[in-house]
Amino acid sequence: MKIILVGASGTIGKAVDKELSARHEIVRVNRTSGDLQVDLSDPKSIERLYQETGAFDALVCTAGKVHFGAFDDFTPEKYAIGLDNKLMGQVNLVTFGLKHIRGGGSFTLTSGLLNDDPIREGVSAAMVNGGLEGFVHGAAIVMPRGLRINLVSPTVVEESLPVFGPFFRGVKPVPVSDAALGYAKSVEGAQTGRVYRIGWSRDQ
Amino acid sequence: MKIILVGASGTIGKAVDKELSARHEIVRVNRTSGDLQVDLSDPKSIERLYQETGAFDALVCTAGKVHFGAFDDFTPEKYAIGLDNKLMGQVNLVTFGLKHIRGGGSFTLTSGLLNDDPIREGVSAAMVNGGLEGFVHGAAIVMPRGLRINLVSPTVVEESLPVFGPFFRGVKPVPVSDAALGYAKSVEGAQTGRVYRIGWSRDQ
Repeated sequence: MKIILVGASGTIGKAVDKELSARHEIVRVNRTSGDLQVDLSDPKSIERLYQETGAFDALVCTAGKVHFGAFDDFTPEKYAIGLDNKLMGQVNLVTFGLKHIRGGGSFTLTSGLLNDDPIREGVSAAMVNGGLEGFVHGAAIVMPRGLRINLVSPTVVEESLPVFGPFFRGVKPVPVSDAALGYAKSVEGAQTGRVYRIGWSRDQ
Repeated sequence: MKIILVGASGTIGKAVDKELSARHEIVRVNRTSGDLQVDLSDPKSIERLYQETGAFDALVCTAGKVHFGAFDDFTPEKYAIGLDNKLMGQVNLVTFGLKHIRGGGSFTLTSGLLNDDPIREGVSAAMVNGGLEGFVHGAAIVMPRGLRINLVSPTVVEESLPVFGPFFRGVKPVPVSDAALGYAKSVEGAQTGRVYRIGWSRDQ
Protein backbone atom coordinates (compact mmCIF):
# COMPACT_ATOMS: atom_id res chain seq x y z
CA MET A 1 0.00 0.00 0.00
CA LYS A 2 0.99 3.61 -0.51
CA ILE A 3 0.41 5.29 2.86
CA ILE A 4 0.51 9.05 3.47
CA LEU A 5 1.78 9.63 7.02
CA VAL A 6 1.12 13.17 8.27
CA GLY A 7 3.13 13.89 11.40
CA ALA A 8 5.87 11.40 10.47
CA SER A 9 8.56 13.17 12.51
CA GLY A 10 6.59 13.17 15.77
CA THR A 11 6.88 10.67 18.61
CA ILE A 12 3.85 8.65 17.52
CA GLY A 13 4.53 9.25 13.80
CA LYS A 14 7.98 7.70 14.03
CA ALA A 15 6.56 4.61 15.74
CA VAL A 16 3.84 4.28 13.09
CA ASP A 17 6.53 4.64 10.41
CA LYS A 18 8.55 1.83 12.01
CA GLU A 19 5.44 -0.39 12.32
CA LEU A 20 4.20 0.09 8.74
CA SER A 21 7.29 0.76 6.61
CA ALA A 22 8.43 -2.88 6.58
CA ARG A 23 5.29 -3.82 4.64
CA HIS A 24 4.27 -0.60 2.84
CA GLU A 25 5.46 2.46 0.94
CA ILE A 26 5.35 5.48 3.30
CA VAL A 27 5.10 9.10 2.11
CA ARG A 28 6.35 11.12 5.09
CA VAL A 29 4.67 14.49 5.62
CA ASN A 30 5.47 17.13 8.24
CA ARG A 31 5.05 20.85 8.67
CA THR A 32 8.62 21.72 7.62
CA SER A 33 10.48 18.44 6.91
CA GLY A 34 9.91 15.03 5.31
CA ASP A 35 9.04 14.06 1.73
CA LEU A 36 6.22 16.64 1.56
CA GLN A 37 5.01 19.49 3.77
CA VAL A 38 1.58 20.58 4.97
CA ASP A 39 0.13 23.20 7.30
CA LEU A 40 -2.88 21.45 8.84
CA SER A 41 -4.54 24.74 9.78
CA ASP A 42 -4.63 25.87 6.13
CA PRO A 43 -7.19 24.09 3.89
CA LYS A 44 -5.35 25.30 0.76
CA SER A 45 -2.14 23.70 1.98
CA ILE A 46 -4.02 20.40 2.41
CA GLU A 47 -5.44 20.62 -1.13
CA ARG A 48 -1.91 21.27 -2.44
CA LEU A 49 -0.56 18.27 -0.51
CA TYR A 50 -2.87 15.92 -2.42
CA GLN A 51 -1.78 17.41 -5.76
CA GLU A 52 1.70 16.27 -4.77
CA THR A 53 0.87 12.84 -3.32
CA GLY A 54 -1.34 11.71 -6.19
CA ALA A 55 -3.42 8.55 -5.66
CA PHE A 56 -2.86 6.62 -2.44
CA ASP A 57 -4.32 3.76 -0.39
CA ALA A 58 -4.27 5.05 3.18
CA LEU A 59 -3.88 8.32 5.04
CA VAL A 60 -2.65 8.29 8.63
CA CYS A 61 -2.50 11.52 10.61
CA THR A 62 -0.62 11.62 13.92
CA ALA A 63 -0.30 15.43 13.99
CA GLY A 64 -2.50 18.17 15.40
CA LYS A 65 -2.00 21.23 17.57
CA VAL A 66 -4.22 22.27 20.51
CA HIS A 67 -3.77 25.04 23.07
CA PHE A 68 -3.32 23.86 26.67
CA GLY A 69 -3.96 26.30 29.49
CA ALA A 70 -6.05 27.32 32.48
CA PHE A 71 -9.81 27.22 31.86
CA ASP A 72 -10.32 30.84 33.00
CA ASP A 73 -7.77 32.10 30.45
CA PHE A 74 -9.42 30.50 27.39
CA THR A 75 -10.74 32.85 24.69
CA PRO A 76 -12.42 32.11 21.36
CA GLU A 77 -9.00 32.63 19.75
CA LYS A 78 -7.32 30.00 21.95
CA TYR A 79 -10.08 27.49 21.25
CA ALA A 80 -9.65 28.25 17.52
CA ILE A 81 -6.08 26.90 17.56
CA GLY A 82 -7.28 23.35 18.22
CA LEU A 83 -10.43 23.67 16.11
CA ASP A 84 -8.46 24.90 13.07
CA ASN A 85 -5.52 22.53 13.42
CA LYS A 86 -6.16 19.23 15.21
CA LEU A 87 -9.89 19.06 14.44
CA MET A 88 -10.48 20.70 11.06
CA GLY A 89 -6.93 19.89 9.87
CA GLN A 90 -7.76 16.19 10.19
CA VAL A 91 -11.32 16.61 8.90
CA ASN A 92 -9.98 18.49 5.87
CA LEU A 93 -7.43 15.71 5.22
CA VAL A 94 -10.49 13.48 4.78
CA THR A 95 -12.64 16.02 2.90
CA PHE A 96 -9.98 16.77 0.28
CA GLY A 97 -8.47 13.28 0.34
CA LEU A 98 -11.72 11.69 -0.86
CA LYS A 99 -10.90 12.76 -4.43
CA HIS A 100 -7.49 11.08 -4.39
CA ILE A 101 -7.78 7.94 -2.25
CA ARG A 102 -8.23 4.60 -4.04
CA GLY A 103 -11.41 2.54 -3.48
CA GLY A 104 -11.20 0.37 -0.37
CA GLY A 105 -8.68 2.74 1.20
CA SER A 106 -8.71 4.13 4.71
CA PHE A 107 -8.27 7.26 6.79
CA THR A 108 -6.87 6.95 10.32
CA LEU A 109 -6.96 10.01 12.55
CA THR A 110 -5.66 10.69 16.08
CA SER A 111 -7.40 12.03 19.16
CA GLY A 112 -6.46 11.14 22.77
CA LEU A 113 -8.07 10.30 26.11
CA LEU A 114 -8.87 13.82 27.36
CA ASN A 115 -12.50 13.99 26.20
CA ASP A 116 -13.37 11.16 28.56
CA ASP A 117 -10.53 11.45 31.08
CA PRO A 118 -9.98 15.22 31.35
CA ILE A 119 -7.11 17.16 32.97
CA ARG A 120 -7.02 20.76 34.26
CA GLU A 121 -5.38 22.39 31.25
CA GLY A 122 -7.12 20.25 28.66
CA VAL A 123 -10.61 21.70 28.04
CA SER A 124 -9.82 22.52 24.41
CA ALA A 125 -8.22 19.12 23.81
CA ALA A 126 -11.32 17.50 25.35
CA MET A 127 -13.55 19.42 22.95
CA VAL A 128 -11.41 18.63 19.90
CA ASN A 129 -11.06 14.92 20.75
CA GLY A 130 -14.81 14.62 21.26
CA GLY A 131 -15.38 16.33 17.93
CA LEU A 132 -13.06 13.84 16.23
CA GLU A 133 -14.96 10.88 17.75
CA GLY A 134 -18.26 12.28 16.52
CA PHE A 135 -16.84 12.99 13.07
CA VAL A 136 -15.42 9.49 12.67
CA HIS A 137 -18.70 7.87 13.77
CA GLY A 138 -20.64 10.13 11.39
CA ALA A 139 -18.30 9.79 8.41
CA ALA A 140 -17.88 6.00 8.62
CA ILE A 141 -21.49 5.33 7.60
CA VAL A 142 -21.34 7.56 4.51
CA MET A 143 -17.89 6.80 3.12
CA PRO A 144 -18.16 6.05 -0.60
CA ARG A 145 -16.37 3.27 -2.57
CA GLY A 146 -15.73 0.97 0.41
CA LEU A 147 -13.54 3.57 2.10
CA ARG A 148 -13.00 3.22 5.84
CA ILE A 149 -12.22 5.63 8.67
CA ASN A 150 -11.06 5.02 12.25
CA LEU A 151 -9.66 7.00 15.15
CA VAL A 152 -6.72 6.10 17.37
CA SER A 153 -7.02 7.54 20.87
CA PRO A 154 -3.81 6.78 22.77
CA THR A 155 -3.12 7.46 26.43
CA VAL A 156 0.18 9.15 27.32
CA VAL A 157 3.14 7.32 25.79
CA GLU A 158 6.31 6.62 27.77
CA GLU A 159 8.44 8.49 25.26
CA SER A 160 6.49 11.73 25.91
CA LEU A 161 6.70 11.60 29.70
CA PRO A 162 9.56 14.13 29.94
CA VAL A 163 7.22 16.74 28.41
CA PHE A 164 3.70 15.61 29.32
CA GLY A 165 4.28 13.60 32.53
CA PRO A 166 3.47 16.48 34.93
CA PHE A 167 0.04 16.95 33.32
CA PHE A 168 -0.87 13.26 33.63
CA ARG A 169 -0.02 12.21 37.18
CA GLY A 170 -1.62 8.87 37.96
CA VAL A 171 -2.02 7.89 34.32
CA LYS A 172 -0.20 4.68 33.36
CA PRO A 173 1.78 5.34 30.17
CA VAL A 174 2.25 2.81 27.37
CA PRO A 175 5.21 2.33 25.03
CA VAL A 176 4.64 4.27 21.82
CA SER A 177 4.93 0.96 19.93
CA ASP A 178 1.58 0.02 21.56
CA ALA A 179 -0.02 3.15 20.11
CA ALA A 180 1.45 2.28 16.69
CA LEU A 181 -0.45 -1.03 16.71
CA GLY A 182 -3.75 0.86 16.62
CA TYR A 183 -2.77 2.46 13.32
CA ALA A 184 -1.75 -0.90 11.83
CA LYS A 185 -5.09 -2.38 12.91
CA SER A 186 -6.95 0.47 11.25
CA VAL A 187 -4.93 0.51 8.00
CA GLU A 188 -4.50 -3.23 7.51
CA GLY A 189 -7.75 -4.46 9.10
CA ALA A 190 -11.31 -4.23 7.81
CA GLN A 191 -13.07 -2.30 10.58
CA THR A 192 -14.56 1.18 10.19
CA GLY A 193 -16.08 3.80 12.48
CA ARG A 194 -14.05 2.55 15.43
CA VAL A 195 -12.20 4.39 18.19
CA TYR A 196 -9.12 2.40 19.20
CA ARG A 197 -8.44 3.40 22.82
CA ILE A 198 -4.80 2.47 23.45
CA GLY A 199 -3.90 1.96 27.10
CA TRP A 200 -7.19 3.24 28.53
CA SER A 201 -10.90 2.50 28.51
CA ARG A 202 -13.95 4.70 28.79
CA ASP A 203 -15.38 5.06 32.28
CA GLN A 204 -19.01 5.90 31.42
CA MET B 1 -33.36 31.42 40.47
CA LYS B 2 -32.79 33.81 37.60
CA ILE B 3 -32.35 31.60 34.53
CA ILE B 4 -31.16 32.82 31.13
CA LEU B 5 -32.83 30.67 28.46
CA VAL B 6 -31.16 30.98 25.04
CA GLY B 7 -33.37 29.51 22.33
CA ALA B 8 -36.57 30.20 24.28
CA SER B 9 -38.77 30.34 21.17
CA GLY B 10 -37.68 26.94 19.80
CA THR B 11 -39.49 23.63 20.24
CA ILE B 12 -37.27 22.49 23.10
CA GLY B 13 -36.89 26.02 24.50
CA LYS B 14 -40.64 26.44 24.89
CA ALA B 15 -40.88 23.15 26.78
CA VAL B 16 -37.99 24.13 29.07
CA ASP B 17 -39.71 27.48 29.67
CA LYS B 18 -42.92 25.69 30.64
CA GLU B 19 -41.03 23.28 32.94
CA LEU B 20 -38.97 25.93 34.76
CA SER B 21 -41.05 29.12 34.73
CA ALA B 22 -43.43 27.95 37.45
CA ARG B 23 -40.54 27.91 39.92
CA HIS B 24 -38.04 30.44 38.52
CA GLU B 25 -37.56 33.79 36.80
CA ILE B 26 -36.83 33.18 33.10
CA VAL B 27 -34.99 35.67 30.86
CA ARG B 28 -35.99 34.60 27.33
CA VAL B 29 -33.31 35.06 24.66
CA ASN B 30 -33.61 34.41 20.92
CA ARG B 31 -31.92 35.58 17.77
CA THR B 32 -34.58 38.15 16.88
CA SER B 33 -37.37 37.96 19.52
CA GLY B 34 -37.79 37.52 23.28
CA ASP B 35 -36.60 39.67 26.20
CA LEU B 36 -33.07 39.89 24.80
CA GLN B 37 -31.37 38.92 21.54
CA VAL B 38 -28.11 37.15 20.71
CA ASP B 39 -26.30 35.88 17.63
CA LEU B 40 -24.58 32.71 18.86
CA SER B 41 -22.05 32.78 16.02
CA ASP B 42 -20.77 36.22 17.11
CA PRO B 43 -18.66 36.29 20.30
CA LYS B 44 -19.20 40.06 20.63
CA SER B 45 -22.97 39.56 20.59
CA ILE B 46 -22.58 37.04 23.45
CA GLU B 47 -20.47 39.48 25.47
CA ARG B 48 -23.14 42.16 24.92
CA LEU B 49 -25.89 39.76 26.03
CA TYR B 50 -24.30 39.40 29.46
CA GLN B 51 -24.00 43.18 29.84
CA GLU B 52 -27.77 43.18 29.49
CA THR B 53 -28.62 40.16 31.65
CA GLY B 54 -26.46 41.15 34.60
CA ALA B 55 -25.87 38.55 37.32
CA PHE B 56 -27.78 35.26 37.03
CA ASP B 57 -27.98 31.78 38.54
CA ALA B 58 -28.30 29.46 35.54
CA LEU B 59 -27.79 29.55 31.79
CA VAL B 60 -29.68 27.10 29.60
CA CYS B 61 -29.01 26.98 25.87
CA THR B 62 -31.37 25.05 23.60
CA ALA B 63 -30.24 26.82 20.41
CA GLY B 64 -27.54 26.05 17.87
CA LYS B 65 -27.29 25.86 14.10
CA VAL B 66 -25.53 23.10 12.12
CA HIS B 67 -25.43 22.43 8.39
CA PHE B 68 -27.04 19.15 7.29
CA GLY B 69 -26.13 17.72 3.91
CA ALA B 70 -24.50 14.94 1.90
CA PHE B 71 -21.01 13.98 3.11
CA ASP B 72 -19.44 14.47 -0.34
CA ASP B 73 -20.71 18.07 -0.51
CA PHE B 74 -19.19 19.21 2.78
CA THR B 75 -16.55 21.96 2.63
CA PRO B 76 -14.61 23.70 5.40
CA GLU B 77 -17.15 26.54 5.13
CA LYS B 78 -20.11 24.21 5.71
CA TYR B 79 -18.42 22.62 8.72
CA ALA B 80 -17.74 26.14 10.04
CA ILE B 81 -21.49 26.85 10.36
CA GLY B 82 -21.87 24.28 13.14
CA LEU B 83 -18.47 24.97 14.70
CA ASP B 84 -19.13 28.72 14.94
CA ASN B 85 -22.76 28.49 16.03
CA LYS B 86 -23.80 25.32 17.89
CA LEU B 87 -20.32 24.45 19.22
CA MET B 88 -18.47 27.72 19.87
CA GLY B 89 -21.71 29.65 20.42
CA GLN B 90 -22.45 27.45 23.42
CA VAL B 91 -18.78 27.33 24.53
CA ASN B 92 -18.66 31.13 24.37
CA LEU B 93 -21.87 31.39 26.44
CA VAL B 94 -19.85 29.60 29.13
CA THR B 95 -16.57 31.46 28.55
CA PHE B 96 -18.13 34.91 28.81
CA GLY B 97 -20.81 33.87 31.28
CA LEU B 98 -18.21 32.91 33.91
CA LYS B 99 -17.80 36.59 34.81
CA HIS B 100 -21.53 37.09 35.43
CA ILE B 101 -22.89 33.86 36.89
CA ARG B 102 -23.36 33.65 40.67
CA GLY B 103 -21.36 31.09 42.71
CA GLY B 104 -23.04 27.68 42.73
CA GLY B 105 -24.76 28.40 39.42
CA SER B 106 -24.95 26.14 36.39
CA PHE B 107 -24.61 26.02 32.62
CA THR B 108 -26.74 23.53 30.67
CA LEU B 109 -25.96 23.06 26.98
CA THR B 110 -27.63 21.00 24.25
CA SER B 111 -26.20 18.42 21.83
CA GLY B 112 -28.16 15.45 20.38
CA LEU B 113 -27.73 11.77 19.61
CA LEU B 114 -25.94 12.02 16.24
CA ASN B 115 -22.35 11.69 17.50
CA ASP B 116 -23.14 8.17 18.69
CA ASP B 117 -26.12 7.32 16.48
CA PRO B 118 -25.26 8.99 13.16
CA ILE B 119 -27.45 9.62 10.10
CA ARG B 120 -26.46 10.22 6.47
CA GLU B 121 -26.70 14.01 6.42
CA GLY B 122 -25.36 14.52 9.93
CA VAL B 123 -21.56 14.32 9.84
CA SER B 124 -21.18 17.94 10.98
CA ALA B 125 -23.78 17.51 13.73
CA ALA B 126 -21.92 14.37 14.85
CA MET B 127 -18.69 16.34 15.08
CA VAL B 128 -20.27 19.26 16.93
CA ASN B 129 -22.16 17.06 19.40
CA GLY B 130 -18.99 15.09 20.16
CA GLY B 131 -17.13 18.35 20.72
CA LEU B 132 -19.81 19.48 23.17
CA GLU B 133 -19.53 16.22 25.14
CA GLY B 134 -15.76 16.60 25.37
CA PHE B 135 -16.05 20.25 26.38
CA VAL B 136 -18.56 19.56 29.15
CA HIS B 137 -16.44 16.71 30.54
CA GLY B 138 -13.35 18.91 30.41
CA ALA B 139 -14.95 22.06 31.82
CA ALA B 140 -16.79 20.37 34.69
CA ILE B 141 -13.58 19.53 36.56
CA VAL B 142 -12.22 23.08 36.39
CA MET B 143 -15.33 25.18 37.03
CA PRO B 144 -14.58 27.77 39.73
CA ARG B 145 -16.83 28.79 42.68
CA GLY B 146 -18.89 25.59 42.78
CA LEU B 147 -20.24 26.21 39.28
CA ARG B 148 -21.65 23.21 37.43
CA ILE B 149 -22.05 22.28 33.76
CA ASN B 150 -24.09 19.53 32.07
CA LEU B 151 -25.21 18.59 28.59
CA VAL B 152 -28.68 17.49 27.49
CA SER B 153 -28.60 15.17 24.48
CA PRO B 154 -32.19 14.51 23.37
CA THR B 155 -33.32 12.10 20.70
CA VAL B 156 -35.85 13.37 18.14
CA VAL B 157 -38.89 14.91 19.82
CA GLU B 158 -42.43 14.18 18.66
CA GLU B 159 -43.12 17.87 18.05
CA SER B 160 -40.28 18.03 15.48
CA LEU B 161 -41.33 14.97 13.48
CA PRO B 162 -43.00 16.98 10.68
CA VAL B 163 -39.59 18.52 9.89
CA PHE B 164 -37.03 15.94 11.05
CA GLY B 165 -38.96 12.68 10.82
CA PRO B 166 -37.67 11.71 7.36
CA PHE B 167 -34.06 11.93 8.57
CA PHE B 168 -34.70 9.70 11.59
CA ARG B 169 -36.61 6.66 10.32
CA GLY B 170 -36.57 3.93 12.96
CA VAL B 171 -35.82 6.30 15.82
CA LYS B 172 -38.47 6.31 18.56
CA PRO B 173 -39.34 9.93 19.35
CA VAL B 174 -40.12 11.27 22.82
CA PRO B 175 -42.48 14.09 23.86
CA VAL B 176 -40.56 17.35 24.16
CA SER B 177 -41.65 17.50 27.82
CA ASP B 178 -39.34 14.50 28.40
CA ALA B 179 -36.42 16.47 27.00
CA ALA B 180 -37.33 19.42 29.24
CA LEU B 181 -36.87 17.21 32.31
CA GLY B 182 -33.17 16.88 31.52
CA TYR B 183 -32.76 20.64 31.82
CA ALA B 184 -34.62 20.75 35.14
CA LYS B 185 -32.39 17.95 36.45
CA SER B 186 -29.29 19.87 35.44
CA VAL B 187 -30.42 23.28 36.74
CA GLU B 188 -32.12 22.16 39.96
CA GLY B 189 -29.99 19.11 40.79
CA ALA B 190 -26.40 18.94 42.05
CA GLN B 191 -24.68 16.89 39.34
CA THR B 192 -21.94 18.17 37.06
CA GLY B 193 -20.05 16.93 33.99
CA ARG B 194 -22.98 14.73 32.98
CA VAL B 195 -24.55 14.01 29.59
CA TYR B 196 -28.31 13.46 30.01
CA ARG B 197 -29.30 11.23 27.09
CA ILE B 198 -33.06 11.69 26.73
CA GLY B 199 -34.83 8.82 24.96
CA TRP B 200 -31.70 7.00 23.82
CA SER B 201 -28.61 5.26 25.22
CA ARG B 202 -25.10 4.88 23.94
CA ASP B 203 -24.39 1.67 22.05
CA GLN B 204 -20.65 1.38 22.58
